[in-house]
Amino acid sequence: MPIINVGVLGATGFAGRELLAIITKHPSLKLAFAASESYAGKRFSQVYPDPVDVVLVAPDDAPLAEADLVFLCTPHGASAQWAVKALEDGCRVVDLSADFRLRDLATYERWYAAHPAPHLLQEAVYGLTELARDAIREARLVANPGCYPTSVLLPLEPLLRAGALVGAGIIVDSKSGTSGAGASPTTKTHFMSVHDNFSAYALGHAHRHVPEMEQELSAYAGAAVHVTFSPHLLPVARGILSTIYVQLAETWTAERVTDLWRQAYASEPFVQIMPPAEPPSLAHVARSNRIAMSAAESGVPGQIVIVSVLDNLVKGASGQAVQNANVMFGLAEPSGLL
Amino acid sequence: MPIINVGVLGATGFAGRELLAIITKHPSLKLAFAASESYAGKRFSQVYPDPVDVVLVAPDDAPLAEADLVFLCTPHGASAQWAVKALEDGCRVVDLSADFRLRDLATYERWYAAHPAPHLLQEAVYGLTELARDAIREARLVANPGCYPTSVLLPLEPLLRAGALVGAGIIVDSKSGTSGAGASPTTKTHFMSVHDNFSAYALGHAHRHVPEMEQELSAYAGAAVHVTFSPHLLPVARGILSTIYVQLAETWTAERVTDLWRQAYASEPFVQIMPPAEPPSLAHVARSNRIAMSAAESGVPGQIVIVSVLDNLVKGASGQAVQNANVMFGLAEPSGLL
Amino acid sequence: MPIINVGVLGATGFAGRELLAIITKHPSLKLAFAASESYAGKRFSQVYPDPVDVVLVAPDDAPLAEADLVFLCTPHGASAQWAVKALEDGCRVVDLSADFRLRDLATYERWYAAHPAPHLLQEAVYGLTELARDAIREARLVANPGCYPTSVLLPLEPLLRAGALVGAGIIVDSKSGTSGAGASPTTKTHFMSVHDNFSAYALGHAHRHVPEMEQELSAYAGAAVHVTFSPHLLPVARGILSTIYVQLAETWTAERVTDLWRQAYASEPFVQIMPPAEPPSLAHVARSNRIAMSAAESGVPGQIVIVSVLDNLVKGASGQAVQNANVMFGLAEPSGLL
Amino acid sequence: MPIINVGVLGATGFAGRELLAIITKHPSLKLAFAASESYAGKRFSQVYPDPVDVVLVAPDDAPLAEADLVFLCTPHGASAQWAVKALEDGCRVVDLSADFRLRDLATYERWYAAHPAPHLLQEAVYGLTELARDAIREARLVANPGCYPTSVLLPLEPLLRAGALVGAGIIVDSKSGTSGAGASPTTKTHFMSVHDNFSAYALGHAHRHVPEMEQELSAYAGAAVHVTFSPHLLPVARGILSTIYVQLAETWTAERVTDLWRQAYASEPFVQIMPPAEPPSLAHVARSNRIAMSAAESGVPGQIVIVSVLDNLVKGASGQAVQNANVMFGLAEPSGLL
Repeated sequence: MPIINVGVLGATGFAGRELLAIITKHPSLKLAFAASESYAGKRFSQVYPDPVDVVLVAPDDAPLAEADLVFLCTPHGASAQWAVKALEDGCRVVDLSADFRLRDLATYERWYAAHPAPHLLQEAVYGLTELARDAIREARLVANPGCYPTSVLLPLEPLLRAGALVGAGIIVDSKSGTSGAGASPTTKTHFMSVHDNFSAYALGHAHRHVPEMEQELSAYAGAAVHVTFSPHLLPVARGILSTIYVQLAETWTAERVTDLWRQAYASEPFVQIMPPAEPPSLAHVARSNRIAMSAAESGVPGQIVIVSVLDNLVKGASGQAVQNANVMFGLAEPSGLL
Repeated sequence: MPIINVGVLGATGFAGRELLAIITKHPSLKLAFAASESYAGKRFSQVYPDPVDVVLVAPDDAPLAEADLVFLCTPHGASAQWAVKALEDGCRVVDLSADFRLRDLATYERWYAAHPAPHLLQEAVYGLTELARDAIREARLVANPGCYPTSVLLPLEPLLRAGALVGAGIIVDSKSGTSGAGASPTTKTHFMSVHDNFSAYALGHAHRHVPEMEQELSAYAGAAVHVTFSPHLLPVARGILSTIYVQLAETWTAERVTDLWRQAYASEPFVQIMPPAEPPSLAHVARSNRIAMSAAESGVPGQIVIVSVLDNLVKGASGQAVQNANVMFGLAEPSGLL
Repeated sequence: MPIINVGVLGATGFAGRELLAIITKHPSLKLAFAASESYAGKRFSQVYPDPVDVVLVAPDDAPLAEADLVFLCTPHGASAQWAVKALEDGCRVVDLSADFRLRDLATYERWYAAHPAPHLLQEAVYGLTELARDAIREARLVANPGCYPTSVLLPLEPLLRAGALVGAGIIVDSKSGTSGAGASPTTKTHFMSVHDNFSAYALGHAHRHVPEMEQELSAYAGAAVHVTFSPHLLPVARGILSTIYVQLAETWTAERVTDLWRQAYASEPFVQIMPPAEPPSLAHVARSNRIAMSAAESGVPGQIVIVSVLDNLVKGASGQAVQNANVMFGLAEPSGLL
Repeated sequence: MPIINVGVLGATGFAGRELLAIITKHPSLKLAFAASESYAGKRFSQVYPDPVDVVLVAPDDAPLAEADLVFLCTPHGASAQWAVKALEDGCRVVDLSADFRLRDLATYERWYAAHPAPHLLQEAVYGLTELARDAIREARLVANPGCYPTSVLLPLEPLLRAGALVGAGIIVDSKSGTSGAGASPTTKTHFMSVHDNFSAYALGHAHRHVPEMEQELSAYAGAAVHVTFSPHLLPVARGILSTIYVQLAETWTAERVTDLWRQAYASEPFVQIMPPAEPPSLAHVARSNRIAMSAAESGVPGQIVIVSVLDNLVKGASGQAVQNANVMFGLAEPSGLL
């Protein structure tokens, strides 16, 4: 079995933490280094109570050249700069930040900031594995999709490709576990703010995952798609549940949507199609790389309510990153993920 | 100060429990009896760890005639039968079940079952206090609104009365704490099923609160309104957050919606209007009789995203029931609720 | 009814927050000012989603002279300095920090740091209300007890005064809700660290509440008492449950302990004695100023297992502070606390 | 690799559920059948949202003879009867109930009920794997230890074997996640009873795990040991944390205890020794088969406070059951458990 040497930058955020857990159990990935700005010099087990035994290095000391692949769990802006360095050192890169998800520079700069490496935008492959395997296989640089977009794009792609969408608007009401808010301790992530509470934020069209969803959905539909997006914060550790409202042509029923999904994802190990009106809960996918989905009717002809769930740290981040790495290096795609 | 003698039937469900807590602290309500089928003969403090000291009587032994007002926390079907008896004994009635919320018998029987007292349907007053004070003041029988409908109707009434709605469809994505699922221990309410989990249920148009919302919204709009409704179960004890998507005429902005609310509810002690795009969390209203709401824009002209929150056991059930009782007996409306 | 003007320093910590909630509903306390170093100039409602409407002032701008009483929710060290100023301005003081709980300067300095106002140590009254009412009534400066000590001292005082203790050692295994860890966002208070987790800390004899317990218990017993103390962090918002293991003379049974408690606390509104072996849960006292306790036998003659519960923010902090204020100003002791 | 055919009786309790999850991923165990009284005829995935695909059979239809080993997750009393049948059919048995843990019939009958198969009591091996490997290897019938006893016995065995204990009494203050309360929905396991709450139960010497602990501890010490035991219910899904208070000879320090553990468990993959006074949290062992422990001093010479943690469903039940099965069939002991 080939051994692929991988490095992780940003190892002590929650995506990095999850990545180390997966890599530790992966039969073909070997950890070349794990870098952390905040905890350089410490053992990982001093930061988290996980059975991962590695000494964290400072990012600037990370031996990039020893890695075949580098996973970037660094913040946007920083990721683009690390991608440049890693590519120069001959590594392939899976970037878990947003830096290479948007193909349009102006859009990136409107939602984020000046881009440190715009020349790489066109080369980067948007790594929704199920939909882009061929490109991922050859990619030097994979932009790992956002957690919310993954939960929205996989259910909608077959429908939009089939031309089923009526009008240009989709409503997405998403609920995320608190790991999605990041490892930095803030008033918002304090136990007393989250526990026994529930809240909405960045309502309407304000969250940075909006342009990412609109870019991909518009490509599937062949026309501009507008996403009304309402993220919410759940008092759970992990998981995203998205409730998606789409108006399809009147001939579309929950049954027909389900059939289309079953065809589209027949051979996918990580896509689980539930019967109509039997929506999966977060527990269906907790700690797995799966996404599960179900469709229901609303009584308005053609209006379909979709519920999708995934684990934001796995299929929504580090699991999909490893799935992409497996594809990039010709490993069995589910390797280390079952 | 006048003293009103009140009785509670169904005192050991969660609505009954909350009602006893409110009555115990209320300056003008005196508990005549608390009845429970399951726990007759026990002290309330043997059932719940609450500082309420009363011996529960069997429903058939409840001295209805000693009460000026009876609160019915009994299941639908049973409530209608108790209402008949209580009215015969000269009591006024606030029914927290669904038995008298739907004015149309056929609709009731389609969503529930045969109605035990259809002759009372027209007399009953739908007790959304802020919108029906005059009728409540004189009512013998008040149908206390459902928890989900309360969270939806108060934000939408001013908009629909103003003729702002375009089209006939509204999407409501609601999330409820687990007390909403009732006190009966089932697999679904087991701690292991709810904790660290989140799920959708009764998707699309299947929940029994749908006809209640459609009845009232259609009355406000003067035309049939369809509600696409997705309830979800939160791993919290109490609270409902509803995210509501409405298409208004293009001249409506979040600011204008907020202004309309501020006018409509200017003198309401239990309605809290938040600035645009500052959605309240469950914590804003936990253990209070308030509803709080905020409006945001989605980028689609006239499409408004509303977030409303209330405590399902208080404003969504027992608090509003006491608010109605206060109105019925000429007490200060916030009495016992601040 | 007399109106007492009170000020709060350190209003945006969790004790301060709880204090403002109590004062807002208190019939005789009027808030003269609420001061916060971190949030000066903001409205309290911008900091917490509570129905408390006050603009926070900077501590140095707090008009001490306008207050009859100042509650200090400031950190130890700072509290002592504020106490000096407030007393000079003619205020009476309830200090919720540890600064005046230990009567022995050397002990204070061993567990904390140099004391800014050692001359006040002898004057300060240790404010466990049920046990020190007469002194509190006249006190200028009340040291409000720690949350853990309150849960331990009230159950043990009658036993130790009765000379029941055999040997010099007591074992206290306490579990506290996360509000006890303070409002500062840290890795330890991050939702992801606390949720679905449980941990021990400061094991054996290391927590700063140890000398406070030992000081009081030794006074009750008339001999040195050693406390082996193990605090734990619970994934709940509020509440302390202490499981206390004491070796009494062999004639002591759970029944006799319970009888002694019933006598000692017969007229206490905030002390709830449960039957033997029916330990109260946190829910028994959540959001109340009560402490509840029960005794059980272990099979070893005279060895008694006591479970006590209180709400760490109320009886363990701000509720007891108001109880003390009520005593200091001749108000009904339960005023504002029922 | 040899394939061992295993059956599970009582597959839809929480221990059975965990066992199926482990078996599904185990390289050498093949599921011959999973039996459930409550859900016979259903697919396991209709009962739990787990990726386990098996149709449940009625216990009476379970093809015992097809299994090399049967895991009994049935209630005490029932387990003993199933053990007789399974042994007759030539199966080896790991019983997760209490039926074969107590060697003394009178003790069993005092704490439980009449024993259905007393003739097997002497043959059964108490399956605390680390301490009984040789006997387990040859055993036909293994009594899998209780969850609480596992957390207590592994830390104490080296100390008691070394003769360190002074006196005859040990105090164990244990806290368990709610999965320990079983899958039956009751008022006590209702989300609203457990969430944001914490409680003690079966205080002193009343829990059925007491005689199991005392039997084993007395054997280690060579003299009768009394256990004062206080179990508590945590609002978490899984995990036990036991805080253990022992009086050792005065020469014993936390350091010396730690050294003894390090020697005793040097080669154990599932025993993790933490440094003195660095107690592990539940998160250290969640979803693993490990037990972790740390020792601290209390200031009383020789008095040691031990904190141990394990996952009650894994090392405290199904993980240890598989560990035992691995030993019984000569598989690598950690097989399927890492």
